[in-house]
Amino acid sequence: MSDAAAPATPAAAAAGPLGIIAGAGELPVRVARAAVAAGREVFVIVIGGHGDPGPFGSIPKVVLRLGAAGRMIELLRERGVRQLVLAGRVSRPSLFALRPDPAGAMLLARIGAKAFGGDDTLLSAVIRVLAEEGFEVVGAQAFLDDLFAPPGLMTKRAPDEQAMADIRRGVAVVRALGAADVGQAAVVQQGLVLGVEAIEGTDALIRRCRDLAREGAGGVLVKLVKPGQSRLVDLPTVGLATVEEAAMAGLRGIAVEAGGTIILDRPAIVAAAEEAGLFLTAIDPEDPAMKETTAP
Amino acid sequence: MSDAAAPATPAAAAAGPLGIIAGAGELPVRVARAAVAAGREVFVIVIGGHGDPGPFGSIPKVVLRLGAAGRMIELLRERGVRQLVLAGRVSRPSLFALRPDPAGAMLLARIGAKAFGGDDTLLSAVIRVLAEEGFEVVGAQAFLDDLFAPPGLMTKRAPDEQAMADIRRGVAVVRALGAADVGQAAVVQQGLVLGVEAIEGTDALIRRCRDLAREGAGGVLVKLVKPGQSRLVDLPTVGLATVEEAAMAGLRGIAVEAGGTIILDRPAIVAAAEEAGLFLTAIDPEDPAMKETTAP
Repeated sequence: MSDAAAPATPAAAAAGPLGIIAGAGELPVRVARAAVAAGREVFVIVIGGHGDPGPFGSIPKVVLRLGAAGRMIELLRERGVRQLVLAGRVSRPSLFALRPDPAGAMLLARIGAKAFGGDDTLLSAVIRVLAEEGFEVVGAQAFLDDLFAPPGLMTKRAPDEQAMADIRRGVAVVRALGAADVGQAAVVQQGLVLGVEAIEGTDALIRRCRDLAREGAGGVLVKLVKPGQSRLVDLPTVGLATVEEAAMAGLRGIAVEAGGTIILDRPAIVAAAEEAGLFLTAIDPEDPAMKETTAP
Repeated sequence: MSDAAAPATPAAAAAGPLGIIAGAGELPVRVARAAVAAGREVFVIVIGGHGDPGPFGSIPKVVLRLGAAGRMIELLRERGVRQLVLAGRVSRPSLFALRPDPAGAMLLARIGAKAFGGDDTLLSAVIRVLAEEGFEVVGAQAFLDDLFAPPGLMTKRAPDEQAMADIRRGVAVVRALGAADVGQAAVVQQGLVLGVEAIEGTDALIRRCRDLAREGAGGVLVKLVKPGQSRLVDLPTVGLATVEEAAMAGLRGIAVEAGGTIILDRPAIVAAAEEAGLFLTAIDPEDPAMKETTAP
């Protein structure tokens, strides 16, 4: 977690305008508004087909397709941007669909087709290439206080013994998956792993598990940062939709990674969890208490 | 793979009647017919709600629910059964739904609630308890020649370079998952892991990946034995439905574990794969050529 704690206002004056490369979801909009509110000049590049320019309102922005990487870098330079936030979901395209512009193709060659092997490999390579181009990539947490879940229980309802065992099982599974650079979430019920996430997304995972659930005590969703994942981009996020899907699937609660999983608009999400009777807890997967006990 | 090679006709005379505990699918029926054809007396216990007594025809059988473990052992003893095959799918019940009979509850206590942590843990514990009760559990392969896929390509079509890279990625992911005692299969397309299997089953996995596929070259299904999995029960199986689902999902081929994945009725399945233009290959996941290369 060493790179999680960038200073809250990273050398704003020295760094010039903040560039935001924006995928889907609320996070890039919140970063943009927070930076503007802090007096920072902001320039947003919305990834066409992924992000939505609408919510940025009057904040300066352009929409460019993902393959137009050369044009992006050109525009960022023209605007004097040196510090960048990459925020919001970008579903991975096929190499075929990417249609890189000429400079984009050269960047892609530098990233290497190998980077298509796993999400983190790709993102790490993108961050490395941006650094080589003279940009500093900072995390959304640099602009948003309170972005990460603090350790501990956030709801009145707490996990019982069975739910704690399910959380431990989920931690073991998600970390095994994460080590192979796949997925961040699993649903576990009564020790049984109902589903693990690949690229379908957490909401689709939970929906699928609704039909796979067994009788008796409901399951839990465990959503963690991958071991070794950069804390700068693409962090696991829990939103209102996650809580709603979890409640509809009969889950009893959600466990996220303290200091790693993003909880957007925490008061609203905690209130929704309370309303639905779910627990919401932030754990440290490295805590020895989170290890599964071995066979008796 | 040391325990895969039981003798083809395991001490039939000495062992008395063969007991078969039968879940869903074709495998237990094939084992029963092969044993009868070899002159062995057979007694089948069909797990109610999972297996189907119909296809066993005139072979002696009873239907018992999974929780009636005490009654099962009693019946097997009455019939003089000492050698057992456990074959066919049994979807894992919740502890709640199991409703064990009194002897079943005692067996369950011996297996331990811990066994509900993962499939192999449960099956290993069941085999251990059956051994303590004086039964010998043998694999279906002891009665069916040619049950496992031999190493190598089974179809005219072969995986190209991209498909081989996808297979290697799939091997890495499935083995990571298997080490956490979850799932046996993954679908990979152009380096991207579209889905990984938990308890939904391989056919459901493939169907889901149909909507997640990217443009361009189709993906591959990789289906392996879990590292450390007993070769006695619940081995991964590829059937006609797998090939049909794979073709409908636009996959280009299937890679299974040589000497570990069961291919039921191989000539028919190879013919279906040829017809659909899929490759079907059996690999050794321990082969160094199956390891993913590291970053350039």
